Amino acid sequence: MERILGNVETKYFDLGKFKTESSETIDGVEVAYETYGQLNAKGNNAILITHAFSGDAHATGWRDDAKKPGWWGSMIGPGKAFDTDQYFIICSNVLGGCAGTTGPSSLNSATSRPYGSDFSQITIGDMVAVQERLIDHLGIEKLLSVAGGSMGGMQALQWLAAHPDRIHSAIPIATTMKHTPQQIALNHIQRQAIMTDPNWRGGDYYVDQSPNRGLATARMLGHATYTSDAAMQEKFGRRKTDGIFEVESYLDYKGDQFAKRFDANSYIYLTRAMDNFDVSGSFETADDDSAKILVISFSSDWLYPPWQSEETAAELKSLGYDVEHVVIESSAGHDSFLLENEVQARVIRDFLARIALDLASCEKVSSLLN
Amino acid sequence: MERILGNVETKYFDLGKFKTESSETIDGVEVAYETYGQLNAKGNNAILITHAFSGDAHATGWRDDAKKPGWWGSMIGPGKAFDTDQYFIICSNVLGGCAGTTGPSSLNSATSRPYGSDFSQITIGDMVAVQERLIDHLGIEKLLSVAGGSMGGMQALQWLAAHPDRIHSAIPIATTMKHTPQQIALNHIQRQAIMTDPNWRGGDYYVDQSPNRGLATARMLGHATYTSDAAMQEKFGRRKTDGIFEVESYLDYKGDQFAKRFDANSYIYLTRAMDNFDVSGSFETADDDSAKILVISFSSDWLYPPWQSEETAAELKSLGYDVEHVVIESSAGHDSFLLENEVQARVIRDFLARIALDLASCEKVSSLLN
Repeated sequence: MERILGNVETKYFDLGKFKTESSETIDGVEVAYETYGQLNAKGNNAILITHAFSGDAHATGWRDDAKKPGWWGSMIGPGKAFDTDQYFIICSNVLGGCAGTTGPSSLNSATSRPYGSDFSQITIGDMVAVQERLIDHLGIEKLLSVAGGSMGGMQALQWLAAHPDRIHSAIPIATTMKHTPQQIALNHIQRQAIMTDPNWRGGDYYVDQSPNRGLATARMLGHATYTSDAAMQEKFGRRKTDGIFEVESYLDYKGDQFAKRFDANSYIYLTRAMDNFDVSGSFETADDDSAKILVISFSSDWLYPPWQSEETAAELKSLGYDVEHVVIESSAGHDSFLLENEVQARVIRDFLARIALDLASCEKVSSLLN
Repeated sequence: MERILGNVETKYFDLGKFKTESSETIDGVEVAYETYGQLNAKGNNAILITHAFSGDAHATGWRDDAKKPGWWGSMIGPGKAFDTDQYFIICSNVLGGCAGTTGPSSLNSATSRPYGSDFSQITIGDMVAVQERLIDHLGIEKLLSVAGGSMGGMQALQWLAAHPDRIHSAIPIATTMKHTPQQIALNHIQRQAIMTDPNWRGGDYYVDQSPNRGLATARMLGHATYTSDAAMQEKFGRRKTDGIFEVESYLDYKGDQFAKRFDANSYIYLTRAMDNFDVSGSFETADDDSAKILVISFSSDWLYPPWQSEETAAELKSLGYDVEHVVIESSAGHDSFLLENEVQARVIRDFLARIALDLASCEKVSSLLN
């Protein structure tokens, strides 16, 4: 029988003042995070899971207050790819988000109102710097791995570029070193859809109604880019109910549901952070101690197509990294990494086992030498 | 030296009452059209050009009042693929459009106000039925060809399905027999972007400001689907001006320009007509007199990918049609058909020459027999 994690809880780390890459200071940053499994005595079995654009700290298990299982439940748990019997798994909500970690909808102590458009334009680098403070706080010197898909994959690459000495490995999935103009264009259009909403009011809408209609439209476009034509064909075809295509009603429903839980400003800030992200050319040359890299992409992903993962793998390879790129056949599009996927699970399980083994043998050698 | 057409003018055909496929009557339908070249004595050199979603009757030449050349100037003119020295070319604005032919922004004589949301939900079949009345009016019994790209290609296919005895050939370009759920989804999102605009007011916005912001956002998404990542990469890369990605400013500019010239209701009605269009399974079995078909698609077109054109060609082939499908290598995406393209020009020129030659020999045989 499959074992699933029981109740999990979200914890909060009070980080205090945080200085962004753009040299602005955000006071009283709080970080929402969850952990699963146990940190071992050597503190070397910790894996940081970095979430995608609309994810949160609740990566697996059941949380009573959220009334839902975590977003990567199929991948994280006892005996799963990220095995909580072996590893200590950490997942935190990103800086700029709206699910517990400080973001534009948080209270600005200087004005006693939510930041709104006064929030600093944070970067993927800032998100990762906040995560580094969190693992300091948890007493972890070096992560066994950092793994995530989409915007989560950007964070994994950022760890490698900015904090290479603090990770033994990285697993960037369905992601890219930098957005192409088409990816920027699609994000720009999503932002425009939000800003067209009469309730947008320049981002300072918290005292009144939120721009939910525009936010829903933005999400519909996001959703369309996360799935694939084949997946929609199978699910909806050209079927109509009451004269409306089922794919239309579905998008409306998904958009509305999303608007209820997500903050429009976070949508703007996080998509901008992704657009501005460009980690190509910023990795150091590899040596024997450098992190090992597993790059994963999906054949039907047209938002972050496999060629972008191949580009990442090629750049890292040229710098001497131990890097493997696995393209997984799938018809589900970009969302494939979030769905139950045996190949992804197997590839990650094997990779982590190899990293853990390498680490154990290195430690044995090093203890013999000392 | 290249010869270009001089001044051309838009003419108007007063069609009168028109009954739609949904059995509603539109009174006083007027059709804006242009013609280039001369109808020959036999009346058998007429080619109907059917325009894409945002096109109009002004397909080529210079029109003083429009202050711009036609949208397919590279393809239509003396010595060009659609050679105005040989053929009599007709192009009309579609029913439901906003460039001279009756549409939602036209005056409803019953209320003395623009139709707005009271306009009938017209179909691609209705557009073509109106075109048939126009060629009746022009005294043309049978068209040498009907040719168009995108929504224009749907019309070409509709001619073949609904009025097969009135065309000698058809050239559907970069199009499909029916939208997939992804194509419907992308149109739905564009409609939602318009309807999110506070000036939308259920489509009855003519007395006040138009929903230009939403319309611009819709167009941006349309534009993103018409081009390709490679084309945007070449044009903009990740360059920024004043902290804004150039691709963002470009989309904003294109969106604003479009909103000035296009009607939001036409956007809604025409995209719905495309979504509802499904001509698969409705072609008759071919015989010796059946129209010859040239299907054209472009390798980088991700909105109407080549597989959809292949599907069209395969269905027609299975019914016994003389059909050829040419996939043209191009990096410009869906818009390739609108751009200067030597391969497209040559393929169409050769095809039309063959059709005209076939027609001439048939007429010779038939005159010998009579």
